[in-house]
Amino acid sequence: MSADQPAIVIPEGYRPLDVHTLAPYLAEQPALRARLGGDPSGWRVDEVGDGNLNLVFIVRGPAGGLCVKQALPYVRLVGESWPLPLNRAFFEHEALVEHGRHAPGLTPEIYRFDPVLMLIVMELLEPHIIMRRGMIQGIRYPRAATDVAEYMARTLFFTSDLGTSAAEKKARVALFCGNAALCKLTEDVIFTEPYMVHDNNRWTSPQLDDLAAAFRADAPLKRAVSRLKCKFMGNAEALIHGDLHTGSIMVTQDDTRVIDPEFAFYGPMGFDTGAFVGNLLLNYFSQDGHATEADERTAYRAWVLETAETFWHAFAERYGALWAERTGDAYPEALFAGEEGAASLSLARDAAIAELFTDTLQFGAAKMIRRILGIAHNIDFEWIEDPDRRAACERPALLLGRELLVNATAYETIEAVTDAARDFHARAGA
Amino acid sequence: MSADQPAIVIPEGYRPLDVHTLAPYLAEQPALRARLGGDPSGWRVDEVGDGNLNLVFIVRGPAGGLCVKQALPYVRLVGESWPLPLNRAFFEHEALVEHGRHAPGLTPEIYRFDPVLMLIVMELLEPHIIMRRGMIQGIRYPRAATDVAEYMARTLFFTSDLGTSAAEKKARVALFCGNAALCKLTEDVIFTEPYMVHDNNRWTSPQLDDLAAAFRADAPLKRAVSRLKCKFMGNAEALIHGDLHTGSIMVTQDDTRVIDPEFAFYGPMGFDTGAFVGNLLLNYFSQDGHATEADERTAYRAWVLETAETFWHAFAERYGALWAERTGDAYPEALFAGEEGAASLSLARDAAIAELFTDTLQFGAAKMIRRILGIAHNIDFEWIEDPDRRAACERPALLLGRELLVNATAYETIEAVTDAARDFHARAGA
Repeated sequence: MSADQPAIVIPEGYRPLDVHTLAPYLAEQPALRARLGGDPSGWRVDEVGDGNLNLVFIVRGPAGGLCVKQALPYVRLVGESWPLPLNRAFFEHEALVEHGRHAPGLTPEIYRFDPVLMLIVMELLEPHIIMRRGMIQGIRYPRAATDVAEYMARTLFFTSDLGTSAAEKKARVALFCGNAALCKLTEDVIFTEPYMVHDNNRWTSPQLDDLAAAFRADAPLKRAVSRLKCKFMGNAEALIHGDLHTGSIMVTQDDTRVIDPEFAFYGPMGFDTGAFVGNLLLNYFSQDGHATEADERTAYRAWVLETAETFWHAFAERYGALWAERTGDAYPEALFAGEEGAASLSLARDAAIAELFTDTLQFGAAKMIRRILGIAHNIDFEWIEDPDRRAACERPALLLGRELLVNATAYETIEAVTDAARDFHARAGA
Repeated sequence: MSADQPAIVIPEGYRPLDVHTLAPYLAEQPALRARLGGDPSGWRVDEVGDGNLNLVFIVRGPAGGLCVKQALPYVRLVGESWPLPLNRAFFEHEALVEHGRHAPGLTPEIYRFDPVLMLIVMELLEPHIIMRRGMIQGIRYPRAATDVAEYMARTLFFTSDLGTSAAEKKARVALFCGNAALCKLTEDVIFTEPYMVHDNNRWTSPQLDDLAAAFRADAPLKRAVSRLKCKFMGNAEALIHGDLHTGSIMVTQDDTRVIDPEFAFYGPMGFDTGAFVGNLLLNYFSQDGHATEADERTAYRAWVLETAETFWHAFAERYGALWAERTGDAYPEALFAGEEGAASLSLARDAAIAELFTDTLQFGAAKMIRRILGIAHNIDFEWIEDPDRRAACERPALLLGRELLVNATAYETIEAVTDAARDFHARAGA
């Protein structure tokens, strides 16, 4: 882990809960007790956390269920040797509430935040599953692309200078500066470690040793990712989710919810849009590893790329539409009044969206690379057991990531990107 | 003023001092009393504030002098109808201390900050004068360009992600978010009001009525300045001075000090570099208005442009040199090791400086325009009494500002900019 470990403040009274102590805790809260119903002794509590950082419990009673997420004072993936501030739960709760306000129906309902136990009690999403898991099984989610687009368009717009006053935004920027340790984690594991020799890194070895070494020696790539890191560190554009991959999205055929914004802070919008696009591309390249004779995934692979296309077009359309009703201090009404003003604003908006598209590709690419060469991998690839087969999927994903990070401005449309994905896939198979 | 006035917090015990109450106050502080020497009844106190916002006193005793700057809870230029937070003095003091640490010898020495009276007691700079005043008189300052370059290179570098850790920077960003009211003032009076009909605006009328109207109807210009406003609002690159025109620089032939950073916050570096370049260009265009038969200012006008060239080259050289000893979290050492890494870092640095140059021109241009069409004018032009003569100087300055704001990327070197200035000047005279 990073050399400068954050000092962890543990609130007096904090203790990690477990399947035995959670029910008595919830029983003390009348509203939560009522949601579960019946006697606490009859509640079923399961710990289901499969993420890298936290405890996650599902609690079921006769009347209903709850989901409880509790922060641990260290990185769960690594252990107590890697401390991580508990107050990330505070920021996650702040972001859930604010994003929920801007994008109603697209986040889980929040019932309680406990600032001592650093836990959030929220709606149990059923029968939702993690989008990534569904995609590994080859399940289509017809609403996901447009719902995620709507979530991002609204949360990013309304927390940016286009959608809020400068005074309110500065106050929120200041608050979320407190989530610095989580930002630092991103800065290290996404923008730095995959491009150097580091104990945290792993990859499918020896199959990808050549590419890992090539990336570590790739000067243009390291310049591009470092420039991107600077942007991540300094561009306070909007309250971003900060970890918006397909593992942070829960879906059914007709409902979509974005969860887990504990990395939230005021950063570049492209980090969110890129996370989704990059993780769709990773899933695309992983499909060959999940294909069977009975389920060869060709059509599904095409659907994954269509989903990326649909997402970007819906995002650009919805985000762009919000410019017309902007209520923030940027692009003031007085400078863009009347028909001529509206026409000029359209040009400004299109230019901003084009810049955001470039950011999207670069941040997405950085996320693709780090999931194959860095500390935290995706089950899209990890669940491909045969390392040769897995590496064959990962290799073109890495190469496309490198291409998009270094040459992003050469790609002006999402179709140019999906074409490149098809091309890199075809060349890898040839 | 802006519709949403900030609520002004006046600390209990705050009172504006005057020439009678200041000496007894200073006499209570043994260290300050010792600096002045003798009996307080013999101290001479003058109020000399000629800025837009504050009280400024000069106090002299037998042993030495002091400068005392006290914030008023309103904009002095306008009066009590325009409230402005007193805590700007807190931020000014914070910035003076931090910038002084990074650029020793280039800021005034600070003796005391009083958080109740919101005043700063500092070194009396003698025989310094405000650089702008000297330039209006046609005085050359041989050190100014390189000293200001050194000040900016060091203050901007060491407060950016290149020169400090992410954790420390985020904590400072959060603190300076509290200076939001001063940022809002900039957002309004520089990036918005000059481009709309607004009571705050004034210009040499009727001579410049045509250009003022043309700028208000200039869609590409309003798009460019609004994009720049967004950058100002969201790009937390470094702790910038925030008001670095030639009126914030005190000079002698062999000493230079940067004063008055009450607008300081974490913003785009180009806002500082641009302020200096833009104000040099304003002074250049003003020289014809100060020329007399005995002092026709042709050579001085050339010196002003040379100063802009010297400044930019010195800034780029010194800022660039600091990249080699960067100690911040951006562009990590591990990714740029060895000879090859150093060569790659040079390319990254040059690209970053080229981007900063474009920002410099655009922010500088916005500052040129606002000083001619907006609320706060420069004495460079204001001291030209004849309105026809003044307008003849202001017109090409406005036109160059418009050109640089809209077409900044067409200017790759500072010489291209000074050539354009000569060209706009010549065409105006023709």
